Amino acid sequence: MKKQNQEGLTVKKEENFSEWFTQLIIKTELADYSSVSGCIILRPRAYQVWEKVKEACDKEFKKIKIQNAYFPLFIPEKAFEKEKEHVKGFAPEVAWVTQTGNTKLKEKLAIRPTSEAIMYESYAKWIRSWRDLPLLLNQWNNVVRWEFNNPVPFFRTREFLWNEMHTAFATEKEALAHGNKVIQKYNKVTEELMALPGIYGRKTDKEKFAGAIFTEKVHHYLPNGRIIEGTCFHYDGQNFAKAYGIKFLDKNEKENFVFQNTHAISTRMLGTMFAIHSDNKGLVIPPRIAENKIVIIPLLFKGKEKKVLEKAKEISKKLSKFSPILDEREEYSPGWKFSEWELKGIPIRIEIGPRDLEKASVIIVKRNTFEKVSIKIKYLQKQIPKILEEIQKELYEKAEKELKNSIKKTEDKKELIRLIKDKKMVKVPLCGMEKCEDNLKADTEGAKVLFIDSKESPKNKKCIICRKPAEHIVYVGKSY
Amino acid sequence: MKKQNQEGLTVKKEENFSEWFTQLIIKTELADYSSVSGCIILRPRAYQVWEKVKEACDKEFKKIKIQNAYFPLFIPEKAFEKEKEHVKGFAPEVAWVTQTGNTKLKEKLAIRPTSEAIMYESYAKWIRSWRDLPLLLNQWNNVVRWEFNNPVPFFRTREFLWNEMHTAFATEKEALAHGNKVIQKYNKVTEELMALPGIYGRKTDKEKFAGAIFTEKVHHYLPNGRIIEGTCFHYDGQNFAKAYGIKFLDKNEKENFVFQNTHAISTRMLGTMFAIHSDNKGLVIPPRIAENKIVIIPLLFKGKEKKVLEKAKEISKKLSKFSPILDEREEYSPGWKFSEWELKGIPIRIEIGPRDLEKASVIIVKRNTFEKVSIKIKYLQKQIPKILEEIQKELYEKAEKELKNSIKKTEDKKELIRLIKDKKMVKVPLCGMEKCEDNLKADTEGAKVLFIDSKESPKNKKCIICRKPAEHIVYVGKSY
Repeated sequence: MKKQNQEGLTVKKEENFSEWFTQLIIKTELADYSSVSGCIILRPRAYQVWEKVKEACDKEFKKIKIQNAYFPLFIPEKAFEKEKEHVKGFAPEVAWVTQTGNTKLKEKLAIRPTSEAIMYESYAKWIRSWRDLPLLLNQWNNVVRWEFNNPVPFFRTREFLWNEMHTAFATEKEALAHGNKVIQKYNKVTEELMALPGIYGRKTDKEKFAGAIFTEKVHHYLPNGRIIEGTCFHYDGQNFAKAYGIKFLDKNEKENFVFQNTHAISTRMLGTMFAIHSDNKGLVIPPRIAENKIVIIPLLFKGKEKKVLEKAKEISKKLSKFSPILDEREEYSPGWKFSEWELKGIPIRIEIGPRDLEKASVIIVKRNTFEKVSIKIKYLQKQIPKILEEIQKELYEKAEKELKNSIKKTEDKKELIRLIKDKKMVKVPLCGMEKCEDNLKADTEGAKVLFIDSKESPKNKKCIICRKPAEHIVYVGKSY
Repeated sequence: MKKQNQEGLTVKKEENFSEWFTQLIIKTELADYSSVSGCIILRPRAYQVWEKVKEACDKEFKKIKIQNAYFPLFIPEKAFEKEKEHVKGFAPEVAWVTQTGNTKLKEKLAIRPTSEAIMYESYAKWIRSWRDLPLLLNQWNNVVRWEFNNPVPFFRTREFLWNEMHTAFATEKEALAHGNKVIQKYNKVTEELMALPGIYGRKTDKEKFAGAIFTEKVHHYLPNGRIIEGTCFHYDGQNFAKAYGIKFLDKNEKENFVFQNTHAISTRMLGTMFAIHSDNKGLVIPPRIAENKIVIIPLLFKGKEKKVLEKAKEISKKLSKFSPILDEREEYSPGWKFSEWELKGIPIRIEIGPRDLEKASVIIVKRNTFEKVSIKIKYLQKQIPKILEEIQKELYEKAEKELKNSIKKTEDKKELIRLIKDKKMVKVPLCGMEKCEDNLKADTEGAKVLFIDSKESPKNKKCIICRKPAEHIVYVGKSY
C-alpha cells in the first residue's frame, strides 16, 4: 500500500472560523479560487447541492404557478437608470461593458446586478389588461456585483448564482398574499432540505432594498456570531411600475399601475449550510440534500479480500437508491479512507470486514456524531432511511439550539456592546430615527439593525441609543 | 361573448421563411426582443423546452460520469490569450468589461465566449497524476459572442445559453472513445426527444474550432434550405494542455500533457426544432418535450354548460399526467380557442360538447396533421399515449424525409450553383486546398463546405473547383 499525503483541516472552527471555513471549502473540493479576483469556481460537490436547491424550489414554485424564463445579461445604461433609488443603490458595484472586439460601444451596458430594469421594460410591453395578471416569472441566473470588500467564497463573491422572482399583480392585497406564499415555499426548502433554521423579519427603511416599499428576510446565525441573510421578499408597491410604465386596464376598463414583489435565494445559502453544519473533521451535509448518502468501505484483510468485496458490492447494489460510493481502491488504507470521506461529508459510512461478515452484519457510522452501531445486513434497507432522517433532524435541532442560544435581550447600551462582542444577536428597543441606527453601528463597532421584531411591543421602553420613546424592538447583530 | 383581437401568422413558411419564423417566435410567446440589440428574452414557453433538454442531457451525461460545475463569467485578458489560435478565432466578438462602478479596471475582463481559458487554468492546478483522470466537467451557462451580423432569435443572438463540456484524458484513445460516447448521448436527446434528424460529419480544417485538432458536428436541414449546426465535438489533442500547462504523472511516473475534448449544445437547437416542425398555423412541438401535451376545450352550449364542464374537468383530472390545459374561459369562443392553442402548439386538442357526451366520447385533433377522431372517454387513458407517440414519430419522419430529399450530388460546378439556389445540400468532390473552399464560396454566393463525407471515396473524382484529383467528397450548403 502506497503512502499518500492526506491533509485534513488544520484549524478549529471554534478557534479561527474564517481560516477553518476557507480550508473547508478548498480541501473538500466544494469550490476554488479563479484568476478573476472575487469570483469562485463551484466544483461538482457544491454545484450538485445548488442543483438540488433549484430542483426543490422549482417544484414548490410550480405549485403556485410561477414560471421560469431567461432575460438578457446586459442592461443598457438608460434602462438601468429609470428607477432613481434602485440605480443609486447598485451603481457603485456595477460592471460595465464598454467595448466589443475593438469597437467602443455607443451606450455602455451594465452586467445585471439584478434584473428589474431589463425585465420591467418587457412587463410594460406584455401587460395590457387584467387578463395578463398576475405575471409570475422567475429566473435562475448569474449576477455581478463588484464589491470592494474582502471576498469570501459563497458569502461575498463578485459573481454569484441565484434565482430572482419578479411578480406583478392587480392589487396590493394579492401581491402581499402571494409574497407570503413564496416565503413559505422557500422555507420548505431551506428548513426541510438544507436543515437551516432562521428568523424572518422586516428591515428598517435604512436597510431595505433600493427601490422597495419594504424588505423582509430570513436571518441565519453563523458559528462566528455573524448573521447572514437568506431568502428575501421585497415589496415594491407601484414604485417600479411607475418608473417603467407597467399599466393595465382593470375589469372596469380603468387604467392602473401594477403592484410588484421580488424574491431571491442565492448560492450564499450554500455557504451558510456548509458553515453551520460542518465540523473540524470536514464537511457535514444534511442527508436529504447529499448526492451520495453512503460510503461503503470494505476492510480488506489478506486472504479474505474476495469474500468481503463481494459482500460489499452486494450491499452497494441493494442500497443503490442512496447512491452509495463503494471505495474499493487498493492503494489506500481503510483509515485513510475514513478520514477522506469524513472530510468530504458523506452522511453514513458502512464498514465491512471479515468479522462483520461472520455475523452477517456491518458497522454503521454517522458522520455528524460519529456514533457507531452494528446492524444486520438484512435490516439495512429498512434502517438506512431511518438513520438518514435521524441525522437530518439532529442537524436541524443543533442549528436551532445555536440560533436560540444566541438571542439575548437588553435595554442597556453597555450590555449591548458586551453581548455583540460575545457574538450574540441582541433584542433592543429603538426609536425610528436613522441617526440612532448610525450611532448604534458606531458604538458597537459595526453591528446593525437586522430586523424589526413584529411580535414584541415597545410600549414604555426607551430607545437604547437616544433614550427617547422606542418605536419598536429590533434585533441587532453583526452581519456578513 | 366579447370580441377579441386574434392574429395568427400572416405569412407562409414556404413563401417567406424569415418573416414566418419571426412571427412564430413572437406571436406564440416563445421569445421576445429586448432593449439590448441582439439579445433575446426566452419566455416560459421556450425556456421550459430548454429545461427539458437540460434535464434529458444531464440524465444521459450522468451515465457516463460527467459532472456539472460552474466557472466564472469573466476571463482576464492574459488568461484568454494563452492559446493563440483560440484567441484569434474569438477576439473580434468578445465583449469586454473595462470599468466597475466609476473605477477603470487595470486588466480588462472578457465575458466568456466559451470557457476553455478560465477552466483550463484550474485543470492545470487540479490535475497532478493519472488518479485525477479522466476529468469530465460540464457547465450549463450563458456566453456572449458579439456578432455584427443581423441577429435572428435563437439562431444568431449575442448572448445565448448552452452547455460546454470540457474533458481531459490520459490518452488520445480514451479521449476519442469518450467523445464518441458523448455524441451518442446528445443524439439520444435531439433525435428521440426533439425529433430532429441530422447528419454527423467532420469539418474541414478551414471550418474547425479555433484551437482544435478536428471538429465534428451534427447538421440539421432547415425549411429555408439553410444548414444549421447542432451538437458538436472538438478534439483538441494536447493543444490547450500545452498552452495552459495541463500535465500529469502517469503510472510510470512519467510526465505527459492531457488529451482534451469539448462538446456543446445551445439554445440554437430550440430554434432548429421550432423552425423544422412548426407550420402556418403556428407552433408544433414534439409531444415528448411539450410541457402541456393536451388542451381540453368544452363546447359550452346554452343549458348544457354545467354537464359538459363537469365532464371536461373529470377528463382533465384523469389525464393529469399529460399536464392538460382545461380552457374554460367564458369570454372566448371555441373557434377562437382552437386557433389560440394551435398557434401555441399543444400536441392534442380534446373537444367535448353535449353531443359527444351523449355518446360518452370526445373528439381528438392532432396538432401536426389536424386529423380528427372520435374516441370513447373510457379508452382515453390508453389511447392518448399512443397518439402522442404517433405524433412524435410522424414529426421525426417528416423532418427526415425533408433532410434526405435535400441531398443532391454533382461533379459539375454549374449544376452545384443551380442546386444551391434551389436550397439543396450538395455532395461534391473537392481537393484539400483552402483556396478551393474560398472559390467555392464565392462561386455559389455564400455556400460553404459543411462537412466531409467519411463513407464515400473520392477515388478517380476531380475537384469541382480546380479539377485536380479530389481528396474527399464533401457536403456543400448555405449555413445559418
